[in-house]
Amino acid sequence: MTKIKLYDLTAANEQQRFSPYCWRIHMALKHKRLPFETVPIRFTDKEFLEFSGQGLVPVLVDGEQTIFDSWRIAEYLEQAYPDAPSLFRSPDGKRHARFIKHWTESLHPMVSRMIIRDVYDEIHEKDKSYFRESREQRLGKTLEDAAADREDTRKKFTAALSPLRLAVAEEPFLCGDHPGFADYIVFGMFQWSRCSSPFPIILAEDTLAVWQKRMLDLYAGYAASFPTAGQGK
Amino acid sequence: MTKIKLYDLTAANEQQRFSPYCWRIHMALKHKRLPFETVPIRFTDKEFLEFSGQGLVPVLVDGEQTIFDSWRIAEYLEQAYPDAPSLFRSPDGKRHARFIKHWTESLHPMVSRMIIRDVYDEIHEKDKSYFRESREQRLGKTLEDAAADREDTRKKFTAALSPLRLAVAEEPFLCGDHPGFADYIVFGMFQWSRCSSPFPIILAEDTLAVWQKRMLDLYAGYAASFPTAGQGK
Repeated sequence: MTKIKLYDLTAANEQQRFSPYCWRIHMALKHKRLPFETVPIRFTDKEFLEFSGQGLVPVLVDGEQTIFDSWRIAEYLEQAYPDAPSLFRSPDGKRHARFIKHWTESLHPMVSRMIIRDVYDEIHEKDKSYFRESREQRLGKTLEDAAADREDTRKKFTAALSPLRLAVAEEPFLCGDHPGFADYIVFGMFQWSRCSSPFPIILAEDTLAVWQKRMLDLYAGYAASFPTAGQGK
Repeated sequence: MTKIKLYDLTAANEQQRFSPYCWRIHMALKHKRLPFETVPIRFTDKEFLEFSGQGLVPVLVDGEQTIFDSWRIAEYLEQAYPDAPSLFRSPDGKRHARFIKHWTESLHPMVSRMIIRDVYDEIHEKDKSYFRESREQRLGKTLEDAAADREDTRKKFTAALSPLRLAVAEEPFLCGDHPGFADYIVFGMFQWSRCSSPFPIILAEDTLAVWQKRMLDLYAGYAASFPTAGQGK
């Protein structure tokens, strides 16, 4: 059996992985106890993804199968490995995860503004001009201006996290006693920040830090074992 | 069998019902096909709720049972009427509804600011000074000031609704092909506004209006049959 391959975004330091969408799949593969290896991809390495018919990570290659888009990859893993622990558990569990996906992605722009200038510092030299140009066009401002009011953005982000904070005060994970894909979706957002920026997007005293720690500890501290921002320089 | 009684907040016009929490239970009772009657309660009628040991609607009385708090009432109905259509369907469905509850309640303050001055117009004379005083203390501003920038609040509210908009573009209801308690929770917020204020909290062209219409049509147009703002004057 050929090992599953996950094409994964990397910083200048090849061990440093920070795509929120790829992190969903790292965790999904650990959840399903599937052995895999990652293929590091930088922003300007798009030619290495051409075989997938598009240009974005994550891409998963499993034998003859090539799948892109993190949600579709999760669906593929569920269907291809029905005996492995389920990411969704039930149609309602999948619906829950789907709403969490929409909700989380509605928060991504705030996280992006807080960390984007730091991401620029972490990525490979050859990626920097592409990154600055494409992101500044999307933001309508410079990376420096986007990050300038990040303490204020953090206040808004902290308020917007209230539904998550309440949910994980009631149960250990968004999915109950055990984590599921809904947890990995939100955790991907936190790993994006943790692995690319020294700026804390939540304060240390935020009760959400308890959930984040729980996620970092999963699978023998798998996510915690990756380099955080600055270690690669 | 004694009919279930729902103690329900009312405006000056006794037919006009606008509590978002009570609307959750109206819809839950229709969902479960349980006959019920409502007991109209005004803000300053708290003495009529004393038997429940607290002062907030909804209160449900079912024979010997008295239950308050909309979430606990839903749990009670599930447990007491297991053969009636389920509000949650599964533990994951309940978890989904619970997150939707936290998310919806994080949006309530925005709706409150948009409609609160109009609510004041609709409620009974004897409630007005209590309402103005308690709400202005909570808001830290006058009702008029809270409503002054409501076009701007609507823009923020419209943006914040994006996870719901995406979810109900994929399936007819938050709970899939059939509505469930998660839908009733969000719909309660819309009924709160619809039945107490002429101000549209979403624009007519918002795709969410399609979902709202679907909810209004349920159970032979039950929710649509209640008076909207202004009709009672």
